[in-house]
This record gives sequence, C-alpha cells and structure tokens, in this order.
Amino acid sequence: MPKLGEFGRIERFFAPLAADLPGAYGLTDDAATVQVPHGYELVVTTDALVERVHFLSTDQPEDLAAKLLAVNLSDLAAKGADPLCYSLVLSLPAHAGDYWVGRFAHGLGESQRNWGIKLLGGDSVSTDGPITLAATVMGLVPTGRMVRRAGAQVGDGLYVSGTIGDAALALAQFERTGEVHPYLRSRYRRPTPRVELAGWVRDHAHAAIDISDGLAADCSHLARASNVRCEIDAALVPLSEPAAALLASEPALRDRVLGGGDDYELLIAAAQAPPGTTRVGRVIAGEGAEILDSAGVPITLARTGWTHG
Amino acid sequence: MPKLGEFGRIERFFAPLAADLPGAYGLTDDAATVQVPHGYELVVTTDALVERVHFLSTDQPEDLAAKLLAVNLSDLAAKGADPLCYSLVLSLPAHAGDYWVGRFAHGLGESQRNWGIKLLGGDSVSTDGPITLAATVMGLVPTGRMVRRAGAQVGDGLYVSGTIGDAALALAQFERTGEVHPYLRSRYRRPTPRVELAGWVRDHAHAAIDISDGLAADCSHLARASNVRCEIDAALVPLSEPAAALLASEPALRDRVLGGGDDYELLIAAAQAPPGTTRVGRVIAGEGAEILDSAGVPITLARTGWTHG
Repeated sequence: MPKLGEFGRIERFFAPLAADLPGAYGLTDDAATVQVPHGYELVVTTDALVERVHFLSTDQPEDLAAKLLAVNLSDLAAKGADPLCYSLVLSLPAHAGDYWVGRFAHGLGESQRNWGIKLLGGDSVSTDGPITLAATVMGLVPTGRMVRRAGAQVGDGLYVSGTIGDAALALAQFERTGEVHPYLRSRYRRPTPRVELAGWVRDHAHAAIDISDGLAADCSHLARASNVRCEIDAALVPLSEPAAALLASEPALRDRVLGGGDDYELLIAAAQAPPGTTRVGRVIAGEGAEILDSAGVPITLARTGWTHG
Repeated sequence: MPKLGEFGRIERFFAPLAADLPGAYGLTDDAATVQVPHGYELVVTTDALVERVHFLSTDQPEDLAAKLLAVNLSDLAAKGADPLCYSLVLSLPAHAGDYWVGRFAHGLGESQRNWGIKLLGGDSVSTDGPITLAATVMGLVPTGRMVRRAGAQVGDGLYVSGTIGDAALALAQFERTGEVHPYLRSRYRRPTPRVELAGWVRDHAHAAIDISDGLAADCSHLARASNVRCEIDAALVPLSEPAAALLASEPALRDRVLGGGDDYELLIAAAQAPPGTTRVGRVIAGEGAEILDSAGVPITLARTGWTHG
C-alpha cells in the first residue's frame, strides 16, 4: 500500500472522527468553530504524553489514544465539565507509519463513543524524536460553575473515586519482575476518566482535582489552593484486590500507592459523599496535606509524585 | 541558580503571561475557562513546530515563540477571527533549560502585546527528542461568520497580503551560501500574521486561506474547496526588494517563491481589493489552480509545498 501522507491520513483516519461535528468542517479548513450555548462557558485543559517519559515504546497505539483522552477527560470531570470536543497534536517519527496511525485513530474513535466527545481539529508533524501526543480538550459548564482546586471548606470530607495506586503498582511490578498483573496493567494502560461524576461535582463539590501526580501531591495542591489542611487516613485509601494482595506481600510498595500517580481518579472535597466514592479523610483548619498511618502519625513518602516531566 | 522545575517555571515565566486573563486562574488549576460573548463563536486552530523539521536548532527561543504564535494567528486572520487566547504544549529536552524557557516566555510576552492575545494554559513535558512547540489558538467571530476556504465566486479577484517567497528564499540562500540577506532572514524568523486584516476578511472576503504550504499549494486548496478555478499571474506576485534582487540573479529560484511556503500571508478571494494587498489573479469557472507565466502558459513547479511534515 502506498504511503498516505499527511492529507491522506487526515482524510482516511481522522475526518471520520470529526464527521458528527459541523464546526470541524470535515478537517478541510484552516480552523474549526466551537459554539458555546448561551449561559455556558468552555472549560479547556491540555495534557501531553511522550514516549519513554509517560509511556513505553511497547504500549499499543489504541491504548495510547484512550489514555491521551482519558488524562484530559479526567481533568474535565474534576472541574465539573461535560466533554464536548478536542484538538490533537501528533508528533510522529517515521516508524509510526500509516498502520500505527490507523490503530491510534481506531482507539480515538472507541473513546469518542465511550465519552461523548468529538475531534475538532489539530496538527500532525514529523519528528526525528519520540512519539509525542497532545490533546486540548474542551467541555462545558454553566458560566461561573467550574469547580476549582480552591474552595474546600473546614468540615468537608475528602473522597476519592475508584481505587488508588493500580498504575503505579503496575510499573513497580514491571520494574521488579518484568511481569504485571493483568488488572493492574489494564489500569495503567486504560485509566477510566470519571466523566460520570462531572455533574455531581459541579452541583455539590466544594473543590476537586484529578489525581495524576499522586494522591499525596495532588492533595497538597488542593490544600494549598483552598488554604486549608487536608488529612488522609492511609488505611481508608481504597485498593483494588490485586493491589491489596501485592501490598500485603511487599508493604514497602505503600509509598508507590500514595505517591506514584497516574491514577486519573478524582479527589473531591464535599459536605456529603459523592456516589460511588470512598471517604479517605477530612478538611480541617490549618495548612498542608498529610497522610496518616493507623496510629495517626504522618507518613513521609520515600517517593512522591512529580517524577516525570 | 537552582533549577526551577515544572512548577517553578510555570510560576516564574508563564503565570505572568496569563495574569490578565481571569479564566486562566493564574495557571494554578487543572483547567481554564473561556467565555464566548453571546452572538459569537470560537474559532480554534492548532499548529506545531518541530526542531530540525520546521526550525533550525540555532534559531533563537524568542523568535520561535513569535513564530509559533504567528503561524496560528495567521490562520485566525484568514478565517476573519479576532485573537483571544491560546494554550501551549512544550516538549523540551534537557538542553532547553530554565534560561531557554525564560527567553521563550519573553518572546511570547512580546507577541501577546503585539497581537492582543493571552496565555490560557497548557502543558510542559520532558522529551529525549527535539524541541517541539504546539499552540492551540482561539479567536472570536460573530456566529456563522467564519470565512472558509470554500466560497470563492467566479469573477472574484485573488489578492495576497505582504510579499511572497521571502522565507523560502532565505532558506534557499542559506542552503547555497551559508549566508542570508538580513531582511529575508527576518521574514523567515519572524513572519507577520496579518491580524489587522481579520475584520476586512470577515466583512468582505468570499474565501481565504493562509499561505503556509506555498502559494501554489494553498491556492489549490482554495480552488478545490470552492469548486472553482483559480489563476495567478506569476508576474503579479509581490516580491520584496531583496527577493526581487535575488531572483534577478538566480531566475531558477522562482519556483521556491511560488511553491516554497512559510509565507504566513493571506490569499483572499473577494469582489474588491482588501486594503494593503496585491491583486495576483482571478477566480473563473472550472477547477484546479494554475500559476501562469507572462505568456499565459501554466508553470509546472519543480518543487511544491508540503515538503515538511
């Protein structure tokens, strides 16, 4: 099969992803248009993934597509915004050819159907470096209703969605043994953005953040922005069964769970429990964030988040 | 000086660029908000620049910042949209350290003041590959008023802003002699987005496109989208004095002027002349685009656009 080239790839792989969005003009123009309904504003977030920094060269293109959208949709959900559309920047070396791009676009299509989002536009460029994927994702909230990191109130409970530490444990297990429990691997490869919580967050949360740098670090971000103190009880942090089993055999991995990141779950400060979440701590007067052990003593993590760029 | 790290760089270099935009929240949250006035819609365009593909490793960070915004603002101007804000993705190798980033941010600030645009948010990531810069730029048009590539009408004149071929000749001269005329170099390094034409384009143009792939290629895009035939008279294509002098001494460079790209000027189809532009051709019934020599014979270009990814 002859190589498709940039225009051929757009027509074959990407235009179908934009077909249901009139403002994308079939990806045939210099720009796209986004209509924001009266009384709403756009919520915009941008996250990029780099080969060998944020993902492995052996990761599958379909998984990378799903992850790229998930890490951005997770931010939208934390802000109480409903997904609308996204713009894409692909920097691709020669070895990521038409077959790779086709599989990547297939993964995007799957995610689009899952999360109700559509491709607006973007750019695709050549590179002699690693595969680099970036998305700017746009969602909607009623004007003035975006949920901030700031806003947590003394007396709020702290809640997390899903389970924490699965992705970090997948990497830890892979580093040590070269093998990974299939469930942990799936959590690393295909994080689930909590899109379904956006409405609840918008209506009830005082503050929220998505957990990408690690529970400890992101809890610190929320405490600092809100000018409060956040305490999390380590024993309350929800673990998946494979994570709990791994931790039982290697207790030192606890720090990876609390500090490792890549969870893409939500940390929510609210007066009541969001549906399907676990209460992990509380907001009190003061400053800073601490994770407490079962004796109530603050844990100093051997390894915190922010380890990748 | 100790290294700033991601958060330090944001606080020091990028937060000041977002200071005047309330919806950027000082770059301290997971996302930003964009308000679109009632009766308007957002125009969104994304362009990326890759080291060794779109720019030289010796190019200065201030120039790269200006160019990154210019190539996107040029798209907005072609669509008749007034600039609003932008989101940024920086993929930076270790050698692009704090000093480099500070100079890059300084260049962004200068462009922001020139073009009335503000930083909304973004992401900065590490890479072991080339410097990769991407911006998603947003502007405003009254709803339904974005100017398309489609829409050129039989009888329209074709007009271009500025002069054509300067950037392509700068590269050609550099390849041959290792030296570049200062004016041509400045046109390569600091293209001028025709932001001031956006209002006229919106009110009067039937179709428009920014010239990035080369005059010949972009004229073809416009003709195809509009389902018309576009003819350009090569003798009418406006040249800067240094470009004209170079061409007089090396006539074979004509194809680089017409096909080389990186002009970031506007090609406009309209019934009347846009202010400060040059009439270069006409829209007639038929299909395709041709550039005609002084005898009216179509020119076959030795080298067309689309040469970089």
